[in-house]
Amino acid sequence: MTETSNSIAAIRGQFLDFTDVIDSPSELEKMLRHFEDGLLLLRNGHIEWFGAWEEGKSKIPENCSIQHYPDKLIVPGFVDTHIHYPQAEIVGAYGEQLLEWLDNYAFPAEKQYKDKEYAAKMADFFIDQLLRNGTTTAMVFCTVHPESVEALFSAAEKRSMRIIAGKVMMDRNAPDYLLDTPESSYNESKKLIEKWHKRGRLLYAITPRFAPTSTAEQLEMAGKLKSEFPDTYVQTHLSENHDEVEWVKELFPEQENYLDVYHHHGLTGSRSIFAHCIHLEEKEWDCLHKTDSAIAFCPTSNLFLGSGLFKLDHAWDKRVKVGMATDIGGGTSFNMLQTSGEAYKVMQLQKQKFSAYEAFYLATLGGAKTLSLDHLIGNFNIGKEADFVVLDPVATTLQEKRLEKSKNVADSLFSLIILGDDRSIFHTWVNAERVYKREKNE
Amino acid sequence: MTETSNSIAAIRGQFLDFTDVIDSPSELEKMLRHFEDGLLLLRNGHIEWFGAWEEGKSKIPENCSIQHYPDKLIVPGFVDTHIHYPQAEIVGAYGEQLLEWLDNYAFPAEKQYKDKEYAAKMADFFIDQLLRNGTTTAMVFCTVHPESVEALFSAAEKRSMRIIAGKVMMDRNAPDYLLDTPESSYNESKKLIEKWHKRGRLLYAITPRFAPTSTAEQLEMAGKLKSEFPDTYVQTHLSENHDEVEWVKELFPEQENYLDVYHHHGLTGSRSIFAHCIHLEEKEWDCLHKTDSAIAFCPTSNLFLGSGLFKLDHAWDKRVKVGMATDIGGGTSFNMLQTSGEAYKVMQLQKQKFSAYEAFYLATLGGAKTLSLDHLIGNFNIGKEADFVVLDPVATTLQEKRLEKSKNVADSLFSLIILGDDRSIFHTWVNAERVYKREKNE
Repeated sequence: MTETSNSIAAIRGQFLDFTDVIDSPSELEKMLRHFEDGLLLLRNGHIEWFGAWEEGKSKIPENCSIQHYPDKLIVPGFVDTHIHYPQAEIVGAYGEQLLEWLDNYAFPAEKQYKDKEYAAKMADFFIDQLLRNGTTTAMVFCTVHPESVEALFSAAEKRSMRIIAGKVMMDRNAPDYLLDTPESSYNESKKLIEKWHKRGRLLYAITPRFAPTSTAEQLEMAGKLKSEFPDTYVQTHLSENHDEVEWVKELFPEQENYLDVYHHHGLTGSRSIFAHCIHLEEKEWDCLHKTDSAIAFCPTSNLFLGSGLFKLDHAWDKRVKVGMATDIGGGTSFNMLQTSGEAYKVMQLQKQKFSAYEAFYLATLGGAKTLSLDHLIGNFNIGKEADFVVLDPVATTLQEKRLEKSKNVADSLFSLIILGDDRSIFHTWVNAERVYKREKNE
Repeated sequence: MTETSNSIAAIRGQFLDFTDVIDSPSELEKMLRHFEDGLLLLRNGHIEWFGAWEEGKSKIPENCSIQHYPDKLIVPGFVDTHIHYPQAEIVGAYGEQLLEWLDNYAFPAEKQYKDKEYAAKMADFFIDQLLRNGTTTAMVFCTVHPESVEALFSAAEKRSMRIIAGKVMMDRNAPDYLLDTPESSYNESKKLIEKWHKRGRLLYAITPRFAPTSTAEQLEMAGKLKSEFPDTYVQTHLSENHDEVEWVKELFPEQENYLDVYHHHGLTGSRSIFAHCIHLEEKEWDCLHKTDSAIAFCPTSNLFLGSGLFKLDHAWDKRVKVGMATDIGGGTSFNMLQTSGEAYKVMQLQKQKFSAYEAFYLATLGGAKTLSLDHLIGNFNIGKEADFVVLDPVATTLQEKRLEKSKNVADSLFSLIILGDDRSIFHTWVNAERVYKREKNE
């Protein structure tokens, strides 16, 4: 771990979190913890005490200033389980579904990240966007260039953020200027792992883009890396789009299904996160469950790229871990509140319920569990790392009117996910330091 | 017409509109009019001259101050073809599809509008929300109470807005406290028509809520009103949700289909606007076309209530007029940019294209055509009423970054609908007066 500041801090306000991970949304209310007037004591980047203000106020050390947030709502920092930092600049690019969108927008944008200075500038921009949206942990795709990974980790380290990221491995079916080879991708990834994995709060993810852009030889190298560094992560894409699924079947006729391409190369497991998973076969669900692999649910991109509707209810039934993800730039917002609103629509179109509690769970402790980080982040349990976000429930006049009619906490939370945006993020704290402050509201 | 101000004004900036109505999206580029540096001259609430700055600057009268908007984009005021003002306060209500949502949220909220003072307060709030989102014309559902209509028209008249609205007619299948009778609904509507229809810029719409909440006797009275006041409008709902469609078939077994219930009672025609139309039968499409009736496309509510996906491409094929609509509170945003972004998703899920030009057309001139107001509003043609909106393309840091990468006007417009919100609305002008000014940005 990096040295965390030796400071102490006391935070007073309304708090909401979930005390433990769940196997079914029916357990959400049991795990809900809500203090109308609560206290959070921070020391050395960690949570030292958490509870009701009346119970805790005597524990506040002398000379410790108290940051009081009346009329706000404090929740654990948001966890974004799938996002591409080099795509921030092409958010809202027009008109295509997945494969054409990659060719026309994503690949040309990624070309620029070979340039160290450009990558550094964009990494700073990206981290700033995360923080202004209350996201304190993210699992991030960089580009094929090691420079892009160096830039991102450096930017995250400056803010002491817990970030998981990796260099894209891609040796075919992309423009030449973005291709590596099985050997170079192995060597470059290994070097990055040795330099960055578990440095401070940073973690490395082995990152084959997706099966169509890697040869079997490259996937084999990815599996070799994973076996040599078993506590690293794996992140990739799985079953986002029908054409993609068909393509994978053509490219890997010897594998039983799309997921099997990864599984065969040792890339499933409890630290493997598969983005999308919209069109899975039942056997793929079973494999995800058995290998304790996880899914990044990207609702905005489901809709914006017209990929389809993720079966969240089925994931619960199959006991497969799911985290929420923005998928910038297939998604169009960095904001986890807006992303949750999109998840609600994805579920409504399937005639399924999706409560605000479920949204906040998935965006905090559920996301942490997905990333096998629930022992470190995701709620206010004592000893956890102090990442949290101070939400303003009335950032707009419409929210103000709506909140007058709010019946209970669940209703207020739901308004936040439907009407909220970056203006709802009042302050963001990372590692017990305030790293973002909303400058003006509307 | 009301007295419009005898003032003159000159507006300079970047302008974009469509010169004429179209029958197919393929004609959009032909009708597109774009001045990087344009001039709009206003007199007495109307457009006196419009064109390139260099060509027009000598026409500016002496003593006429020039409002210059560098780095902005000026478009005709947005037209919202379907919205419920008493539902502004229940935007983002949780968890239900149409019929349950009505019972649990919409009906209880509407009860309050019997109170004149409450209705007046909320009408002001509603009009303010329209203007802060750049909407200058809307077709509005009030409640069953004449007081609600009085309040809305009064609020709109204060701002000289072109608003179409009417009292809901509803004599069954709703709580007692919201029911009228065939006779009372006829009498009250008639009185409101005589007082408000064509008073200044205001217009009246005969407003049976939807077939399930009106008896055949009430629909007959609605038809009688329409025949007695043929230049009034009709607004109602049609084929939003599968359960609703089934219900209508049970309630009106003698009619061939849902639309036929309205058609049979003389409620179709060139000033009839049907909201939703998601699950239409082919015969209903034919009837809409033959009667020159129009559709209000409500994409946010399609998704938020999980109603289904409107077939916009089919509407073009069948030559049925379509306008864009927020459908507050089944929709969750007053903003036409965000609504257009939702329309894009609805189309993507159907593997259909939806360009920014099409979005801006539907939200301006297409909406005006839908409401048979295209001779008065919808673009910058000389003689038209001067309603327009000054957009800020870079209201957020993300938009700023995105715009650096923009390739052309279409791309910039698309970014606006995907990343824009109320902050994108810099100023709103109605009837040649500035009626809204963004106070702060982020």
